Amino acid sequence: MPKINGFQQILKKKKVDFFISCNLDFSRFCYDMAYFSGYGGVGALVIPKNKKPFLVVSKMEAGRARMGGIKVYFPKKKKRLFEFVKEKAKQIGMKGKRIGVNKEEFTLLLKDALKKNFKKAILVDLREEIYKLREQKTKKEIGIIKKGCGISDEILKRCFKNFKKFRTEAEVMAFLENEAKKKGCELAFPTIVASGKNSSDVHHTTEDTKLNKGFGFIDFGIRYKNYCTDTTRTFYIGKPNKKELEIYNFLLNVQKGAIKRLSINKKCSKIFKDVSKDLGKYSKLLTHGLGHGFGIKVHEFPDILGESKHRIKENSVFTIEPGIYFKDFGMRIEDDILVTKDKVDVLTNISKDLLML
Amino acid sequence: MPKINGFQQILKKKKVDFFISCNLDFSRFCYDMAYFSGYGGVGALVIPKNKKPFLVVSKMEAGRARMGGIKVYFPKKKKRLFEFVKEKAKQIGMKGKRIGVNKEEFTLLLKDALKKNFKKAILVDLREEIYKLREQKTKKEIGIIKKGCGISDEILKRCFKNFKKFRTEAEVMAFLENEAKKKGCELAFPTIVASGKNSSDVHHTTEDTKLNKGFGFIDFGIRYKNYCTDTTRTFYIGKPNKKELEIYNFLLNVQKGAIKRLSINKKCSKIFKDVSKDLGKYSKLLTHGLGHGFGIKVHEFPDILGESKHRIKENSVFTIEPGIYFKDFGMRIEDDILVTKDKVDVLTNISKDLLML
Repeated sequence: MPKINGFQQILKKKKVDFFISCNLDFSRFCYDMAYFSGYGGVGALVIPKNKKPFLVVSKMEAGRARMGGIKVYFPKKKKRLFEFVKEKAKQIGMKGKRIGVNKEEFTLLLKDALKKNFKKAILVDLREEIYKLREQKTKKEIGIIKKGCGISDEILKRCFKNFKKFRTEAEVMAFLENEAKKKGCELAFPTIVASGKNSSDVHHTTEDTKLNKGFGFIDFGIRYKNYCTDTTRTFYIGKPNKKELEIYNFLLNVQKGAIKRLSINKKCSKIFKDVSKDLGKYSKLLTHGLGHGFGIKVHEFPDILGESKHRIKENSVFTIEPGIYFKDFGMRIEDDILVTKDKVDVLTNISKDLLML
Repeated sequence: MPKINGFQQILKKKKVDFFISCNLDFSRFCYDMAYFSGYGGVGALVIPKNKKPFLVVSKMEAGRARMGGIKVYFPKKKKRLFEFVKEKAKQIGMKGKRIGVNKEEFTLLLKDALKKNFKKAILVDLREEIYKLREQKTKKEIGIIKKGCGISDEILKRCFKNFKKFRTEAEVMAFLENEAKKKGCELAFPTIVASGKNSSDVHHTTEDTKLNKGFGFIDFGIRYKNYCTDTTRTFYIGKPNKKELEIYNFLLNVQKGAIKRLSINKKCSKIFKDVSKDLGKYSKLLTHGLGHGFGIKVHEFPDILGESKHRIKENSVFTIEPGIYFKDFGMRIEDDILVTKDKVDVLTNISKDLLML
């Protein structure tokens, strides 16, 4: 488990006795637990600085939890999670003075419960360390993400092929999500299908409204073996006029140019600023970032924004997604990119020509 | 807004200056924000004890956020959420000494950010108060939940009608979820389709494996207008023998009997214990609770467990779902129940006879 070994080095450096991640809501997916153990359901993951990591889950979840290969315990019914962790800590000689958590995920309630069992504990926020670790993907992770992008491409292709059948945005979304489920994938985020005026809304909520003429876009991502994908393609229902085609092709060139600007160690803020310049008079219509890392979570490091402090790292995976949003319509083109030592790969390979439907 | 008025009474009683709920993860749904404002996306909801509530969201989310009828602000791009709340607090003369939060949802990171802007704040946990408020549904909520159960019934009926077409658990799940999406509904939780030996696993993860002969069950719930439903039906692929039929009908009688045991003010622990007795030699095979409240979240108050401290309240909505799980197969029957002043209503009306497929 290279990820866990690497993380244990960090724990030692930070003088943290153990890291704990915990999820009590069975309708939520716990990113940190899933990242380290493959299991993101209800339970707790403990990673001691110099002992083997373990999961604590209810008996109901034992089968799923075991799939990642980490030791799994299930306490007796009435024993509380942290009580069990405390007992286990005692057994294996694991101290609980400095306990690592991800402050973005750890709730005040969990803190109270933890403090009841580890009275002298000081909580150490390891959020940045975890996010940096997650930013650079392992070979295995890259393999999964590539495969996920391939599946997502296929689904989108099939969707556009069948597009004439759909009457509403919701039907397009249902088709995409159904295809994902049939392939045993989850969704990375709620699918956006925005047509006509709705495409002027960056994060439009897909509705049961008729597909409108003009520009529209689909922003779709699956979760395959716990890892996300994230693609946007713009379409046009009807026949675009010359001006409209020009705008689209302008954006497409900017997007392709942005990908050419990528290289290891380059400042993300610089990339954003250069692409903003490329957008010229439209630069103010890009109302979101140019891109974001993704992995176990759909938004990870790096942030490709004007204010970003990140640089492009080796083996990182992120989106490049310029978009421009007018009052009455909008468009966005988003690819998933992998940067390795020698090259920049576009992982999403569905055509970027304006889809006329 | 009767819910907000009621909650403001609680704030006054608890001497809380304002309540704040905050969501920074756009792939998550924020229950508390959605409960009070109709909007569960990224942003913050502030409910002062004696001023009008307001939402703070990014401009991208303004359209969606406005739908609940609560005042919506969007701070300028670079202003942080809590900075804006602080400024607003100053403007409207809202003190920030005692700030209410839901400790089960509020993260350590949010606390740090809040404390930066409200230096002397004491955080008051209002989790129990919110859950108690959510437990008793308003007329409007009951209307939505009834309609949601009707939609879910229809979808399940259509699924069983089409069952012969499905080859794998994943295909059944995809069909159900697709139908939900087409009706503009989200999912309340990941659908469980468990067939053959998989049905011995209470929380089986639906797989791309062939539907196996013998007992199986579907546990399915939609989110309609933010409110959940939750139904389980047991099926049998092939022809059950006499013994198998007897076991199923025994469980069905226990489930119907459990519903008959319901009445306002009855202790949930008593209901659980009585039903355990009804289950006789099978009582140890019920490895989960008998039921749980639901609403904006799929697990709410009351808990119908042996250790529960809850009682059945007027206008509460919850599941009754006894199940028994043997080594090689299992079964569960789950209905959604509404208890009002005069009566106990079963909201899920799809047949409970063993579905032979």
